Amino acid sequence: MENKDEYYMKMALAEAREALDADEVPVGAVIVLNDRIIARGHNLTETLRDVTAHAEMIAITAASSALGAKYLKGCTLYVTLEPCVMCAGAIAHAQLDRLVYGADDPKKGYTLLRAAVLPSKMNVEKGILQSECAQILIDFFKEKR
Amino acid sequence: MENKDEYYMKMALAEAREALDADEVPVGAVIVLNDRIIARGHNLTETLRDVTAHAEMIAITAASSALGAKYLKGCTLYVTLEPCVMCAGAIAHAQLDRLVYGADDPKKGYTLLRAAVLPSKMNVEKGILQSECAQILIDFFKEKR
Repeated sequence: MENKDEYYMKMALAEAREALDADEVPVGAVIVLNDRIIARGHNLTETLRDVTAHAEMIAITAASSALGAKYLKGCTLYVTLEPCVMCAGAIAHAQLDRLVYGADDPKKGYTLLRAAVLPSKMNVEKGILQSECAQILIDFFKEKR
Repeated sequence: MENKDEYYMKMALAEAREALDADEVPVGAVIVLNDRIIARGHNLTETLRDVTAHAEMIAITAASSALGAKYLKGCTLYVTLEPCVMCAGAIAHAQLDRLVYGADDPKKGYTLLRAAVLPSKMNVEKGILQSECAQILIDFFKEKR
């Protein structure tokens, strides 16, 4: 009998095949809670012309919607490819319990993370209206605590 | 006369104020192309119950939609707070030319990046159906090239 991880990874692979059928880079994901799939997603960056439409992002948004909850505690995300930094960031924000992935991504996988996430050629400016930008947050959290 | 960066950061701050009015953590963003704002966004994680609904993510998706293009070449993203790792990943994917941010985020800013993006307590499993998960990608790219 195949184990549960393989079972759910096959479901994620089925999602990857959906992406393939749509001529998208074939990556698929499912999110499981208490032995039930609560969300599915596959890469739709071309179809939606949206670089944020990775399988994991779509599945996380769908799972939150299914649960009516922002955090996905107790959930496991199965994804066919090692998440990129964006998706790993979202996975961390969502507070999933467990991540299971299939293939390594030696080019863009989050485990390769170097000193900077942004490309070195990107022009980055900081500190524009710094105090105002910080103050609106300080005021917000002051009121909350 | 104020400079352009300050002008657009004020527009981003206006977005942050929209978030504030909705009782969201007040972060705002605008995306500018050829001296025109093509997209705006503010944090909506509570309203949408979606951890991915950061100001930058919303603005990037909106800008792609406005341009009908996946990549945001030539664009500048103004955001009131240093992007987190998820948003920095999205900014990198979107191939924006320039990032301008206001306040530093000493807790979650992408510039602090440590060895791992995921929390150390998160259980991570890899290699489930690894070859199948890799093969679907290899086949896809083989056909493309």
